[in-house]
Order: sequence, then structure tokens, then C-alpha cells
Amino acid sequence: MAARPPRVRAKLRPQINDLEESKIVEVWQLGLGRKDLIPLWVGESDVVTPAFIRNAAQAALEAGHTFYSYKRGEPELRETLARYISRLHGTPERPTPVTEDRVTVTSAGMNGLMLVMECLIDQGDELVAVTPVWPNIFAAAKIQGGVPRPVPLDLTERGWSLDLDRLFAACSPRTKAMFINSPGNPSGWVLPAEHRQTILDFCRARGIWLIADEVYDRFVYDRPVAPSFLSIAEPDDDLIVVNSFSKAWAMTGWRMGWLVTSHEFGEIIGKTVEFNTSGTPPFLQHAGVVAVRDGEPFVHEMVERCRIGRDLVQQALSQCPRVKLVRPEAAIYAFFKVEGVGDTVQFCKDILKSTGVGLAPGEAFGPGGDGCVRLCFANSAERLSEAMSRLVPALR
Amino acid sequence: MAARPPRVRAKLRPQINDLEESKIVEVWQLGLGRKDLIPLWVGESDVVTPAFIRNAAQAALEAGHTFYSYKRGEPELRETLARYISRLHGTPERPTPVTEDRVTVTSAGMNGLMLVMECLIDQGDELVAVTPVWPNIFAAAKIQGGVPRPVPLDLTERGWSLDLDRLFAACSPRTKAMFINSPGNPSGWVLPAEHRQTILDFCRARGIWLIADEVYDRFVYDRPVAPSFLSIAEPDDDLIVVNSFSKAWAMTGWRMGWLVTSHEFGEIIGKTVEFNTSGTPPFLQHAGVVAVRDGEPFVHEMVERCRIGRDLVQQALSQCPRVKLVRPEAAIYAFFKVEGVGDTVQFCKDILKSTGVGLAPGEAFGPGGDGCVRLCFANSAERLSEAMSRLVPALR
Repeated sequence: MAARPPRVRAKLRPQINDLEESKIVEVWQLGLGRKDLIPLWVGESDVVTPAFIRNAAQAALEAGHTFYSYKRGEPELRETLARYISRLHGTPERPTPVTEDRVTVTSAGMNGLMLVMECLIDQGDELVAVTPVWPNIFAAAKIQGGVPRPVPLDLTERGWSLDLDRLFAACSPRTKAMFINSPGNPSGWVLPAEHRQTILDFCRARGIWLIADEVYDRFVYDRPVAPSFLSIAEPDDDLIVVNSFSKAWAMTGWRMGWLVTSHEFGEIIGKTVEFNTSGTPPFLQHAGVVAVRDGEPFVHEMVERCRIGRDLVQQALSQCPRVKLVRPEAAIYAFFKVEGVGDTVQFCKDILKSTGVGLAPGEAFGPGGDGCVRLCFANSAERLSEAMSRLVPALR
Repeated sequence: MAARPPRVRAKLRPQINDLEESKIVEVWQLGLGRKDLIPLWVGESDVVTPAFIRNAAQAALEAGHTFYSYKRGEPELRETLARYISRLHGTPERPTPVTEDRVTVTSAGMNGLMLVMECLIDQGDELVAVTPVWPNIFAAAKIQGGVPRPVPLDLTERGWSLDLDRLFAACSPRTKAMFINSPGNPSGWVLPAEHRQTILDFCRARGIWLIADEVYDRFVYDRPVAPSFLSIAEPDDDLIVVNSFSKAWAMTGWRMGWLVTSHEFGEIIGKTVEFNTSGTPPFLQHAGVVAVRDGEPFVHEMVERCRIGRDLVQQALSQCPRVKLVRPEAAIYAFFKVEGVGDTVQFCKDILKSTGVGLAPGEAFGPGGDGCVRLCFANSAERLSEAMSRLVPALR
């Protein structure tokens, strides 16, 4: 081969150079190819998407819905979602809190969040977020040059608790957005309904975008649905609510989600959809309509399955004096502290090696997650029983 | 309703505020709901995705492939693509120019391009691109704060032609990437094979990323395949080749594409996939494997269909003395100048009103597209004949 002329390496943006591999992935890689693996590290159930939803996608393919479609989503899906949200979060004062012009279909909840970061966060802008939190939030902000400002929940005997004064004190003139994930991943914390108005008013007065990740709104075990900002907000508030088909309808692999925003911001998000994915496959959106329209019995089954999983895991862990787990009132995770554990990445690697059970290290979730590990209980009782029979001896 | 406390509006990034609506969309909106519309403005054929590809997605859904999958794509699809590319662009010197570790599956070619911009382009970074060009390229760079530096092709009697000196003179110390789309949308221009090495060497010497959009590599009418940078590059070059399932396999609605990069940059792209879409639905990727593996007869049909469309359109337009069209040697568009037309947006609106035929205005495609309009000929002879019977009188 001929000698090449001198070459200068082309450079990446510094934010991309600095992007860390997820600590969950660091543990996950160790488990590749292991035959007896029980993967409880990701937020995914062991349930295949129900047949009635898969059939709807198959039928839409059969019917030839394979062309370019609307950037903000098929009108029928946006209308179906608006009706669904209104049924879920409507109140006597606001029976129809959301209209279809405020709904944008995205290629997963994550995609919706990244589009939002793209619209809001610039170099040096701060994102205040309640932690522990799904690590992808801060990573998405960092890609944009944003600066994470974590505000940790307190873990008390009665559960996780947010200090509103601390949340507001974390906001500065550089704060562009506040991120609240309730019900919370990994903690299962639920924002008390009476705090919503205080937070919304604070953001309104400061010109701060309020990003509410309500992906787990169906997964509550002591009431019908988690409190949503949509029940109290005005249509033109600078509020962005993120949701997803992944959890409630067992559609993790489909990469479908939605955003509720003001009409005005929705139009802007539509422009960024064009330049990011140019929309979600129309035949998948047909299945989304059927999921939302006909999926209530399945969602109830799914939540019941998670309740059983939660109780099974809690019962098993109660045999381990080293483990401190507050009964999760929502979401799909047991996020528990293990006495004497400092490095949770190393701990999860050790547990994986000795038991074959995949757990996610707490330090991946930011301040408040120290010494904890996350276990997804959205799994069958059989799978969870087997996992706990291996885990309990290791955690004693 | 109670009076609201004073409210400060939250702000968008200035780059997002400045984002212009596509000029194609501006015309397109006028045609909404029109019954006799013949839409030739977008880059899409009127062919439904072939049944053998749709069946593969249906079968994968049936088999329950609905879970989270690999960020960089299913291993089988990455291997299938690597073999496909090697078959297409391999040479006696480099029989296997691409290995699977260099392939990343993306949620459409556009998504691949946006991921690349996210990795490369920062505020003030310049993107040099050969124009006329698909407007989404510059828009994606602008979202990142990038500055477009267009280098127009010259339209001569023998066709479109690139002045390499002018291309290189457009590069400054702020140039982060060079974008070359060959075969070109909208022009049908093909980068001469002998220019590839000169361009690659220039980028190597300057530390400039070379982004080659080879989405139309199959759509050439005078040879088997368009020259690719992959045939001459080293595996570790700072070269990024973008491709898509949309055109060759009639899969516009599926939102699937791929990138070929260095192994190292592919790993970085994989991290950004996690935070943008977290991957492409696995059951769609199964269909992608079948498309690439079994789709050659279909691709040949598709190219033949386009050749017929091209000839039909050219034949019809040759009756219009005001029209100057160089026979497109590649891609799927007739991009022709209409004498006496200044404002092509207004012209396309007028044509739409008077004929019902949807054309895309040349000024959407940047310098070099002045006075031109784009027509997609990847359509049935029937549809094109009807369109031309309406257009020709209006263009005379």
C-alpha cells in the first residue's frame, strides 16, 4: 500500500468526548452470553407486546401504510392520546385538559426528551432535576452543553421525600429547565399532589421550563393514577409532559412515545422531529391507536403483575437485615440500600458473578442513589422467585 | 378562574427560534385536501414496500421480537449490511472495504445525519457542502449552531459540474466537516470517481470530517453503482457514509438507515443513539435483513422504473422551450430551470393551483437551485403521464 500523506485527526465536540458510558452498561457487559442470567437491571418486563397490538401493526403493514407520514404523528393517534389523557387526568374544573393540537408523537420517550433538550438547552444552561434519576436525562442535557443540578430526595423511614426549598434554592439565573420524574425511576417516589401548584407557580414566575416525565403514571399501587401536572396547568404554560408506550403496553422495542406541550411549542417540536427522525413509522402508529383505545384491560393486568412482583421482592428482601427498602408506592423498581456497600458498580458486578442476577448500580442515578441498587420487578413471579432465591443468600 | 401570578415566558435556544420552515412544506400546505393532487415534490415513489419485506416484519412481530435491542443495531443486520456494501463497493485491492463493526443502524438516514451533526458541529463550526442540496442538511447543522458554507455546482450544457478549487477554497480553520451528496439530490450530479481521492486527501490533511451521503448509490442509469468513498478509504479514516432503506427498497415510512464510520467513531455514535432514540425497533430490523439479503431483484425493478420515469419526464419537458433540463444521470429527480422564473416558491404555488401537480421549489435547495424546480420521477408511468399532460401546457 502506498504511504499516506500526513493526516490530521478530525475532532469531536468536547461534550461528546466527555460523554460517559452508562454505569448500567458497564455491569451489563459482564453478563453477555451468560446462560443463567436473570436480567433485572433494565426497566422492561418479560411480557411480549400483547397480540392485539402486534396484530394491528401487522394489519397496517398488510394495508400498505408504508409511506412518509405526519411529522407530529398521525392525526388519529394524536386524537386518541388526547382523549386518553383527558380521561386519565381530567378534573371537574378541567374535564378536557389536553387537546390533540398539543400532542406530538415521538420515537420513544427518550427521543421526546432529546428533542426537548435540543430546543431548550445551550452551552452552560442548567437543568435542575430531582434525583436519584434515570441517568439518560443528564446525559441528554450534557450533549447540549448543559450543566446538571441534581436535587436529591431524602430517604426517610416513611419513604422518599422532596424538600421544595432545596429544589427552588438550586435554581439560578442560568436555570433553563426543571426536570421532575414522578412516579420516579428508580425511587418509586410520587410528587405529592399539593406540591404541583407550588412548583408550577415557581417555574412560571422565573421563566423556567417545567419538564415532567410521567412515564410511570399508570404504575401506582394505592390509587388509580399518579397526579399529573396536566390536571392543573393552563394550555399555554411552559410545561412539557413526556410519556411513552414502553411500560404500560409492554412496547419497549417499538420506540414510541409522546409529548404534551403548549400548541405553540408543539409546532416547534414538529420542526425538530423533521430534522431528527422525520417521524415515527405510520404502521406502528396504527398499533399505538389500538393499544390506547383497547388496552385498558392489559394495562390493569400489567400493573397487577407489578404489584405482585413488588410484594414478592419486598417479602424476600425483608429477610436480609443488611437491606433497607421502603415499600415502593409506584413505578416498577425496588431501589434498596445495602448496608456496608460503597462502590455499587463493583457490588453489582460481584452479585452478577456469584448469582447471575443483573442489578443496576445506584450511583448511576446520581446523588441520593449512593449505596443503593435497582431491581425491576415488572417480571413474572417465577422469574422473580428464582432471582430472589439466589439473591437473598448473597445479601444476608 | 383565579388570577394567575405574573408569568415570565421560558425561552428557546436562539438556533431553534431561527429554524425556518422548509420551503417545500410551504408549498405542500397549499395542496392539503386537494383531490386531484399528484404529489411529485417529495423523494418517494408510489410503490408500497414489497410484500416479502412487510411479511418479514409481520413474522418478527409474530415471533415476539418486541424487546429492547442493541443500540448500534441487531448483529445480523449489521453483518448483512457489511456484506452488501462489500459486494457493492469492494474492489480487487479492497475486496472487503467494510466490516460489521463499522456499521451502525439508525432510525432513518436523516437520523444518522443528525447524530453525526450532534457529534461534530458546535456553535460557529462551519459545514461546507456541495449545493444544490437537500435542505435538511443545513437545517441539522444550524440546530447545532453550525454555519453552512454552500459551494454551488455549475450547470453546463454537459451537466452539473463541481469546481474542486472552489470547494477547497470554501474551507477555513473553522470548517469542521465537508458534506458531499453523490448521486445528488436534487441535481442527479455524480462525483467523478477520480475526484474522490483528491477530496479525501484534502480532508485528511486538514482534519476535516468527510460526510458522504450515498443514499442514491443504486440509482444510476449508465453504470451498475455510483462511485463510493468506501472503495478507496482506509477503515480508520474520518469518513462518515450515510445511507438509507427508504429509496432502494421503497421503505420511506420505516425510518431505517445506516452509517459506515471508523470503528472508533461508530462506538461514539452508539452512545448518542442511546440518548436520541435508544435504537431501532428489532422487528423492523429483521425486515431490513430480508430486504438487503433478498431484495436485489426488487432494487433492479425500482431502478428500471425510475429510468422509465426519467425518460418519460424528459421527453415531455423537451416540448417546453422555456425548460432547461440536463438528462439526470442518477438519483430520482428532474431538477430543471424554467426560463423567466425568479421566485420558485411562488411559481410552485401557481403550478399547484393551476394543475394540481406538486413540485418542490429550487430555492429550498440553496445556491445553484435558483430558478429551478424539482420533480420526483420515481413514480408509475401512469401517474407521471397524467402529471406531464397537465404540466407541459403550463410550462410552455
